Amino acid sequence: MVPQKIIDIVARDEHVSSDYIKRGISSGRIIIFYNPIHKKCRPLGIGQGLRTKINANIGTSVDYPGIKTELKKLKICVEAKADAVMDLSTGGNIDKVRRSIISKAPMPIGTVPVYQAVIECGDVCKLSADKLFEVIERHCADGVDFVTVHCGVTKRVVNNLKKHRRVMDIVSRGGAMHACAILKTNKENPLFEQYDRLLEIAKKYNVVLSLGDGMRPGCIADATDISQISELKVLSGLAKRALKAGVQSIIEGPGHVPLNQIEENIKLQKKICNGAPFYVLGPLPTDIAPGYDHLTSAIGGALAGYFGADFLCYVTPAEHLGLPNLEEVREGIMASRIAAHIADIAKGIPGAGSWDLDMAKARKQLNWKKQKELSIDPQKFNKLKKSKVEHDDVCSMCGEFCSMKMMNEMW
Amino acid sequence: MVPQKIIDIVARDEHVSSDYIKRGISSGRIIIFYNPIHKKCRPLGIGQGLRTKINANIGTSVDYPGIKTELKKLKICVEAKADAVMDLSTGGNIDKVRRSIISKAPMPIGTVPVYQAVIECGDVCKLSADKLFEVIERHCADGVDFVTVHCGVTKRVVNNLKKHRRVMDIVSRGGAMHACAILKTNKENPLFEQYDRLLEIAKKYNVVLSLGDGMRPGCIADATDISQISELKVLSGLAKRALKAGVQSIIEGPGHVPLNQIEENIKLQKKICNGAPFYVLGPLPTDIAPGYDHLTSAIGGALAGYFGADFLCYVTPAEHLGLPNLEEVREGIMASRIAAHIADIAKGIPGAGSWDLDMAKARKQLNWKKQKELSIDPQKFNKLKKSKVEHDDVCSMCGEFCSMKMMNEMW
Repeated sequence: MVPQKIIDIVARDEHVSSDYIKRGISSGRIIIFYNPIHKKCRPLGIGQGLRTKINANIGTSVDYPGIKTELKKLKICVEAKADAVMDLSTGGNIDKVRRSIISKAPMPIGTVPVYQAVIECGDVCKLSADKLFEVIERHCADGVDFVTVHCGVTKRVVNNLKKHRRVMDIVSRGGAMHACAILKTNKENPLFEQYDRLLEIAKKYNVVLSLGDGMRPGCIADATDISQISELKVLSGLAKRALKAGVQSIIEGPGHVPLNQIEENIKLQKKICNGAPFYVLGPLPTDIAPGYDHLTSAIGGALAGYFGADFLCYVTPAEHLGLPNLEEVREGIMASRIAAHIADIAKGIPGAGSWDLDMAKARKQLNWKKQKELSIDPQKFNKLKKSKVEHDDVCSMCGEFCSMKMMNEMW
Repeated sequence: MVPQKIIDIVARDEHVSSDYIKRGISSGRIIIFYNPIHKKCRPLGIGQGLRTKINANIGTSVDYPGIKTELKKLKICVEAKADAVMDLSTGGNIDKVRRSIISKAPMPIGTVPVYQAVIECGDVCKLSADKLFEVIERHCADGVDFVTVHCGVTKRVVNNLKKHRRVMDIVSRGGAMHACAILKTNKENPLFEQYDRLLEIAKKYNVVLSLGDGMRPGCIADATDISQISELKVLSGLAKRALKAGVQSIIEGPGHVPLNQIEENIKLQKKICNGAPFYVLGPLPTDIAPGYDHLTSAIGGALAGYFGADFLCYVTPAEHLGLPNLEEVREGIMASRIAAHIADIAKGIPGAGSWDLDMAKARKQLNWKKQKELSIDPQKFNKLKKSKVEHDDVCSMCGEFCSMKMMNEMW
């Protein structure tokens, strides 16, 4: 279990009592990412009543197998203040990439071990339970703080999908791997069948299980359907078993969801899963904006966070188009951080609004230096501010007709 | 009043009956931008049950008085499909800029005449009622389709503000002009005092009055306060008088509003103002993201639209930093259009979701050409897609581990 001194660190970071964190962990409503092997990492708490956190995905692909770019992306994640990072590498020397990332990352690192397991087998049909668990343990022994495991993609769930086909079927990469294995071999998902074996590994390394949503909707037309909900029910049972076994878990969620279904999605998850932390990808409330999916997912993410999602996975402008470059990673992180902060103000996380109040006062005083310091992205502030002709006091939009200046001179 | 053939055009564009539009106009819940002098303009309907529209602000400032740039911005507004454009010019030859824009704009054009009136007087204190109405009529006679008039910034409202000071007092430029005039001269706002004169001009040219919110909150701490609500009540009464006089009006709204107050803001406006179309700037649910305020306002705008806002004013990444450049205008329009579309799906505007369904099907088929065509911004799609190494079928994110490819090969 999580040592007291780790709980104390998180309590301090979150401005709550250690007792609050402890009770949250006991009830499964709060988790702490903390694998002692990942020495450089500051523990991170996620869950009810805590600041909404954001995750950035990095990692190689077959087209971009280089380790250097990924370490540059990690540097951007640190600078841009991503709370956690997932290494989703599928190209080059996957072990080496992961180990390099862990050794340099001051924030928790997550992975999706099934990718590497399938790559090492060369074929989803050849993926044995032993191989899968060996890769999972390899990741944990390297120091990853959380692993995504698609335990809910069971024979029953996949058969359900066969009966109730969707516009986009499965868009989760890990989910599709497990589903294809089930459909081709008719064997049960080992992560489900041998879940206790997974719990043992997780417990041994104090790794958090991120129960993956293989059935997350890939378009708004598929949202909140039978496949999504039937998998969620499976995950709920598995989260309970994890809690009982002293293993921390979080639940992954959609995906593409129209704005009017976000509230019910979050509340449903929280109810079915007894308040377990909810980790959402997006949600994206429209499908038609490739190139702007950091923005669409910030819209969905802000609302999801407000209604109780605890952890937002970033989406970059490159989503649906390709692997993100450095600048796109940065844009994705900023969009997610803004969404999380907006959610925190709205759900009343203590202290969230005081940042905004300081900014408002700096604006009223036309104190540009202070505004820059208080900006979520001072670098961007500089870039946009510099490019305009400026007077000493006002900006180039209103010039002397600055409402602030006019009013400040009045009283 | 609006001729039948104009109503028919709008009804066709909105996929509703002409009778529906007519009833909407009679009850003040729908307006049509249509000044017959603006010959090139396609009439635009705004209000209950219609597609959510978006407006882009362009116009010169003292620092950037050039007409050419503004006409380039207008071109971008046309290409990027802004539904309406406001010319907020305060620099250079304001009449000439406005007339050029109107002559070239296929969409409705709005202005804020008080800016020019104050500039021509040189001082807010010297602004006479005659001057103000003369400038308003000049704009209408030039063919503007709507004018923002801050009729709600009355002596009473301003005195209220003196008693209940805010963190940012007034951030509306027009609002600050009227407030300063009131505070300095102790004379009532002529737009309020001689409202019938304004109605006469609006009726003569069939110009829609956009009842400005001089008291819109400039930071989330000021949202939904006494100043904002007391002005809204004044606007409600003025909207009723306009309807009675056969003049179309819409109500302008905030501003900076935390996410958890957006629903109540929209519903309050709709209730107090008998369902009059609501034109919102943002709302921005956080103050700390200069450089990303197109994104923050898309978050607020999507939610506002879902709860009933009818018309979203764009905010560009340059907001709070300076006058937007061409690229920033484009980014602002796209962000607003995405927010409006997300709102339309969520509030069930007929046909809104079918666009997304087509995109989902194209994705499932890995039909990249179709995906590009269906993108809200095919230019951006190209830019981001091209910059990645691509295989014929899949993208550089997942490569051969494409969930779509895996699943498509399964069935």
